[in-house]
Amino acid sequence: MTRKANQPFVRNAWYIAAWAEEIDNGLLARTIMNQPIVIYRDADGNVGALEDRCCHRGAPLTHGSVTDVGLRCGYHGLTFDTKGNCVEIPGQKNIPAQANVQHFPLVERNQILWIWMGDPALADESLIVDYPYHDDPVKWPHRKAMFQIKSNYMLMIDNLMDLTHLGYVHGSTIGGNPLQHVGADMDSHKTEKGAYFIRWMLEHDPPPTYQKGGQFTGKVDRWQEFEYVGPSIVLQWSGALAVGDGAQEDREKDGFHLRLLHAATPETETTFHYFWSTANGYRQDDPNATQEMYDEIYPTFIEDKVIMEAQQERINLNPDRDLVEIHADGVLALARLSLDEMVEQDNQLMAQAAE
Amino acid sequence: MTRKANQPFVRNAWYIAAWAEEIDNGLLARTIMNQPIVIYRDADGNVGALEDRCCHRGAPLTHGSVTDVGLRCGYHGLTFDTKGNCVEIPGQKNIPAQANVQHFPLVERNQILWIWMGDPALADESLIVDYPYHDDPVKWPHRKAMFQIKSNYMLMIDNLMDLTHLGYVHGSTIGGNPLQHVGADMDSHKTEKGAYFIRWMLEHDPPPTYQKGGQFTGKVDRWQEFEYVGPSIVLQWSGALAVGDGAQEDREKDGFHLRLLHAATPETETTFHYFWSTANGYRQDDPNATQEMYDEIYPTFIEDKVIMEAQQERINLNPDRDLVEIHADGVLALARLSLDEMVEQDNQLMAQAAE
Amino acid sequence: MTRKANQPFVRNAWYIAAWAEEIDNGLLARTIMNQPIVIYRDADGNVGALEDRCCHRGAPLTHGSVTDVGLRCGYHGLTFDTKGNCVEIPGQKNIPAQANVQHFPLVERNQILWIWMGDPALADESLIVDYPYHDDPVKWPHRKAMFQIKSNYMLMIDNLMDLTHLGYVHGSTIGGNPLQHVGADMDSHKTEKGAYFIRWMLEHDPPPTYQKGGQFTGKVDRWQEFEYVGPSIVLQWSGALAVGDGAQEDREKDGFHLRLLHAATPETETTFHYFWSTANGYRQDDPNATQEMYDEIYPTFIEDKVIMEAQQERINLNPDRDLVEIHADGVLALARLSLDEMVEQDNQLMAQAAE
Ligand code: FES
Ligand code: FES
Ligand code: FES
Repeated sequence: MTRKANQPFVRNAWYIAAWAEEIDNGLLARTIMNQPIVIYRDADGNVGALEDRCCHRGAPLTHGSVTDVGLRCGYHGLTFDTKGNCVEIPGQKNIPAQANVQHFPLVERNQILWIWMGDPALADESLIVDYPYHDDPVKWPHRKAMFQIKSNYMLMIDNLMDLTHLGYVHGSTIGGNPLQHVGADMDSHKTEKGAYFIRWMLEHDPPPTYQKGGQFTGKVDRWQEFEYVGPSIVLQWSGALAVGDGAQEDREKDGFHLRLLHAATPETETTFHYFWSTANGYRQDDPNATQEMYDEIYPTFIEDKVIMEAQQERINLNPDRDLVEIHADGVLALARLSLDEMVEQDNQLMAQAAE
Repeated sequence: MTRKANQPFVRNAWYIAAWAEEIDNGLLARTIMNQPIVIYRDADGNVGALEDRCCHRGAPLTHGSVTDVGLRCGYHGLTFDTKGNCVEIPGQKNIPAQANVQHFPLVERNQILWIWMGDPALADESLIVDYPYHDDPVKWPHRKAMFQIKSNYMLMIDNLMDLTHLGYVHGSTIGGNPLQHVGADMDSHKTEKGAYFIRWMLEHDPPPTYQKGGQFTGKVDRWQEFEYVGPSIVLQWSGALAVGDGAQEDREKDGFHLRLLHAATPETETTFHYFWSTANGYRQDDPNATQEMYDEIYPTFIEDKVIMEAQQERINLNPDRDLVEIHADGVLALARLSLDEMVEQDNQLMAQAAE
Repeated sequence: MTRKANQPFVRNAWYIAAWAEEIDNGLLARTIMNQPIVIYRDADGNVGALEDRCCHRGAPLTHGSVTDVGLRCGYHGLTFDTKGNCVEIPGQKNIPAQANVQHFPLVERNQILWIWMGDPALADESLIVDYPYHDDPVKWPHRKAMFQIKSNYMLMIDNLMDLTHLGYVHGSTIGGNPLQHVGADMDSHKTEKGAYFIRWMLEHDPPPTYQKGGQFTGKVDRWQEFEYVGPSIVLQWSGALAVGDGAQEDREKDGFHLRLLHAATPETETTFHYFWSTANGYRQDDPNATQEMYDEIYPTFIEDKVIMEAQQERINLNPDRDLVEIHADGVLALARLSLDEMVEQDNQLMAQAAE
């Protein structure tokens, strides 16, 4: 069985446009699905996402500044509200109907700015992936980051939904012995909007970080849970409980808990924004614990960035060329299957919107 | 009303290829309208502009050197005079007829090298814009510069023929209060080869530079005069006379006078050479006055470069997309109208030359 | 007479892929004729050249590492032998038939790795250009180098098969007086696979390097011999014997001898790898002699690189434009004629292979 490497965009879906903290100081320029966008917070605290191109003479609005009434273009002063309506033209009372710029639905939730690039009429906020951990610093202190990756966004999904790479790509960091990963106990299935797997390593010695975090005295039952929520999100929950604490029945107990949010927002067909946050559900009173985990994980994201970009360079030479599947690609295949369905549905929605 | 951003080339016209001082030390490489050109001064002091490609094996002639008889290619020694005729082939007596390179009419006048990129038969020197101020250092000491701008050349014309940008782009330098500019008294009209406007600010307090330059003791009548001489030149005369000196009847009196020459020579469809010179018609005996004015104006050219290049980036995403016109675009629209006529005429001339 | 500048690839031929010493430390990434290739030496000392793209998910194999059984991909561990066969898939016993990567015939000889980019069935090792001097350090101590050149590979052949450029390009280094070269005595002819010339300068004063190398006390008979062995090799033998030693009858005598190997391996249509080695057949006991010659010649390769790259920039503007031939291009024309024949033959072979 073979399949292609690049994936087309699913436009009718929520994507992470930015961490909310990124626009604390005003404007943010970001390209999403080839569309240059300016994200800003107005004087009332509302956020907006507009096409980053003034309708007057095309200057990027990110060269402007926020005034009391909106975002003012830095060339001749036309000003736009968060919905893209022009609210001010210097020296002119009448504002012509066509004087406005495209806006994109933007929702601020869980310290995340979610954007909808498809038909605005379909931007149903109930479809946004819930991530309450960002709002619960007592139980889940966390840290956020964003990397620019020069690859199709699906290479992140491929990377995360197949852990056999741990031993090879991350051999010098968190990887451990490659064959240990190959032999782990695995449970996986397709979901309505993606794919899921949990991998169990029962009665293992906890690695140093786990031991320190969970203050274990003996062996543990470890798991790694990954859920792909298509098209762009992967939710990771890694952890361990002491043997005998019944991890396989109920994991919501004290022990070692690590939650990662991974989000791949397409910038172009061959680049994406990799948003990730890491929340430590252990040693919450120790201000160093979050930073230590971040520092431990950071290099692995660099390693993944290097391999995904190298992979894309080869794919670019001939994007239509087939790839050879191996046994380890099982969950990945489920994820790609879900995405195929989403792409098909999205094409129908876009065709309807164009009618 | 809407219009497009980029403009095609007008080939049958004189453009500034270089300041004469740029070739004092030999050769100069410059691309004009996508054509790489070598400009050089021969042993007799004559200037020539040749295609920068040797007819032998294509080496750029800018890698060569000037000899007694012409410009010698740096690869195998073929030598060309200022008209592009091959005058020497090492080891060979007969010079074949096809051994020559294309030449472009080039005229040295007012310390400027003017080039004609169209049909050489039409290169009428009387069409060259006169700029005698460069040759009158007693009355008009001056300083010259050239910037490479990554935008279509017409964005310079747009920029200069609409002063409403002063308050926004140059707010931190020479701009002043945006709305002051919007409300100024304005006189404008289309000309045979472009467009013209003069803006009057009567009975104003002179800005510091004006006061120091014109040694005013009270209020002044200020003007800003811009003349677009298509396709590529803008002549600027800014100044002020003391109130009561009758500035609106006759400006040729002592006061504060500043003349700028702006020239946009297309390098490609999306880049141009911005030649500018600034001449101070005041404090001519003070060697610092010219430098001070240059230093004051220099940052505003950088600000314009930044905004024009950002604007072009957006235009490049879709050059055919419409722009929305506002009231302040009045003179600009006249300038673009003139240019449309020039483009049409040029297309006819090129078609005739090709027959 | 005119001809074109760029040349298509001749695929069924041996090219230098690398100096053998380049892969002493493991893997080497190199692009040849647009094909990214990984070259490696396995645990048994055998060399292999594989397509630099894993068949699993396209990661470049140059991100991998050499194990006991082959080259292991750095992403998920698939391992390939020197013929491109997959010999290991982690966690999987069955290796599917399509799990292999393309391999290219590679031969190690004379400290050179020769690669064949055409039909493997035609990779006849007897066609490899013999270069025994690399293996004879007693008589021919030598030094090797490789430059990346941004031009079509044939510009190297053009450059070497026409010495009139010496006086112009290398005027400040080894060039000497241009007209001396024009007037030299020349013997040239087409060969079965290329072109040949020898240039004699009889009863000349030896240049300083020659005098020091050959320990001459009087005048010498000098020669410069160049043989183009298509499509990519030029063999140079420059030297001098004392007048009276009968150089024109038999050059295999003590004197001054310098052998250069020049090889142009196409990377893309407009770039190539310039391999060169310089062997001094004089002062062999003096360890400084080789380095001194290398240091003397090195700048001339830089000068050639500069002019070839500048030439290619102009050619790129219009690759189909004609070039004007002059008398000095005689041998060059023979070389190009040979190459035309090779291209035609290669096209036939490729068409047959595709049947
Ligand atoms: S380009 Fe934005 S106001 Fe003119
Ligand atoms: S390329 Fe100019 S003389 Fe040969
Ligand atoms: S990409 Fe090479 S093993 Fe997966």
